[in-house]
Amino acid sequence: MSNSIKFCTNCGSPIILAIPKGDNRQRHICEHCGEIQYQNPKIVAGCIPIWEDRILLCKRAIEPRKGYWTVPAGFLENGESIEDGAARETWEEACAEIVNLNLYQIYNLPRINQVYILFRARLREPAGFGVGEESTEVELVEEKEIPWDDIAFKVIHNTLQRFLLERRTGNFNVMIDSIQ
Amino acid sequence: MSNSIKFCTNCGSPIILAIPKGDNRQRHICEHCGEIQYQNPKIVAGCIPIWEDRILLCKRAIEPRKGYWTVPAGFLENGESIEDGAARETWEEACAEIVNLNLYQIYNLPRINQVYILFRARLREPAGFGVGEESTEVELVEEKEIPWDDIAFKVIHNTLQRFLLERRTGNFNVMIDSIQ
Repeated sequence: MSNSIKFCTNCGSPIILAIPKGDNRQRHICEHCGEIQYQNPKIVAGCIPIWEDRILLCKRAIEPRKGYWTVPAGFLENGESIEDGAARETWEEACAEIVNLNLYQIYNLPRINQVYILFRARLREPAGFGVGEESTEVELVEEKEIPWDDIAFKVIHNTLQRFLLERRTGNFNVMIDSIQ
Repeated sequence: MSNSIKFCTNCGSPIILAIPKGDNRQRHICEHCGEIQYQNPKIVAGCIPIWEDRILLCKRAIEPRKGYWTVPAGFLENGESIEDGAARETWEEACAEIVNLNLYQIYNLPRINQVYILFRARLREPAGFGVGEESTEVELVEEKEIPWDDIAFKVIHNTLQRFLLERRTGNFNVMIDSIQ
C-alpha cells in the first residue's frame, strides 16, 4: 500500500509539505485549493477465537508474512465497530462465526502507524470454520501445537502468550502496550 | 474536513468508485495508475484528567461544539502511541501534564468513522494547567460543578458519568461500547 501523496484528492493539483496555520506538524497541503490531506494511524481489529481449550489459527495466504500463522485480524473499515471488524475478519480469513467477544489487548505500533485491538472470542460451533480467501490453512490447535517460531506478528505472539498464561489463572486483564 | 476523493494522490488522474479484484467493498480507485485510496476510521485519543476529587474540563474554542465543555481529546497522529496522543492533547488543550494513565473506555462511533480511546489520568500538579489554543476556559471542577447540559459530546458525557459512579465503588472497569 502506497503512502505517496503527490496530488490533491480534491482538485488534482500538486501537493507540498508544510505546516498549516494553527498546526505544529508538517502536512500534505494543496497549494491550489488549500485542502489538507491528513494521515492517521489505522486500527487493526482481530480476535483469539477459542473452542474449549483450543485456539483457531490461520496460515497467511498473502503478504506480509505469507506462510506464517496468525489469528484473524485486519484493517477496520469505515462504518464498522471494532467488534464488527473482528467478526468480519474472522469470517473472511477462517469462515468462522464468533460470539462472546471480550476486549483483551490493545497494541500501539507507532512505527508503522497501526493500533491493534484484539478480543477474546468463542467460536459459535467447533466445526464451524474453513479456509478463507486470505488463508491457506486454518486449524483449531491445542496449546502444545502452537507453532511459536512461525507466528506471523510479534503482537499476536505476545498476546497469545499472555492469553495462555492468564487462562491458567482464570483471570483475564485488558492491557495496552506498545511495540516500538 | 473534506472527505472528497476526486483525484488520485499518486498521479492526479480522476478517481472512480469500484470494487477492486479480491475485495468486496467499493473503493476510490485511479483508472490510470490503479492506486486505491483507502479510507479508514480515525482514533480519537483522550483522558479524564484528575486531581484528588476534581476533574479538568475544557471549554471548546473551536468547532464542532464550540462553547461546550469536554475533556482533552483529539485525533491520534501517525508515529504516536494512544497514551502519547492523550498526553499531547491534554497539553495542547489544557497546558497540563498527565501521569498514571489507565485505559478506561473505548467508544465506537461507526456513523462518523471514529473510535474514541479514553484513559483515566492524574494531573502532575494541581495548579499545572492553563488555557490551551483550542480552549477558551479550563477548570478543575468538583462533581457537583460539572455542567452536564453543556458537555460537548455524548461519548464524554457517558464516560464521565460511569467514571463518577465507579469512583464511588473504587472499582474501575475497562469498557467498550458503541454510539450509533
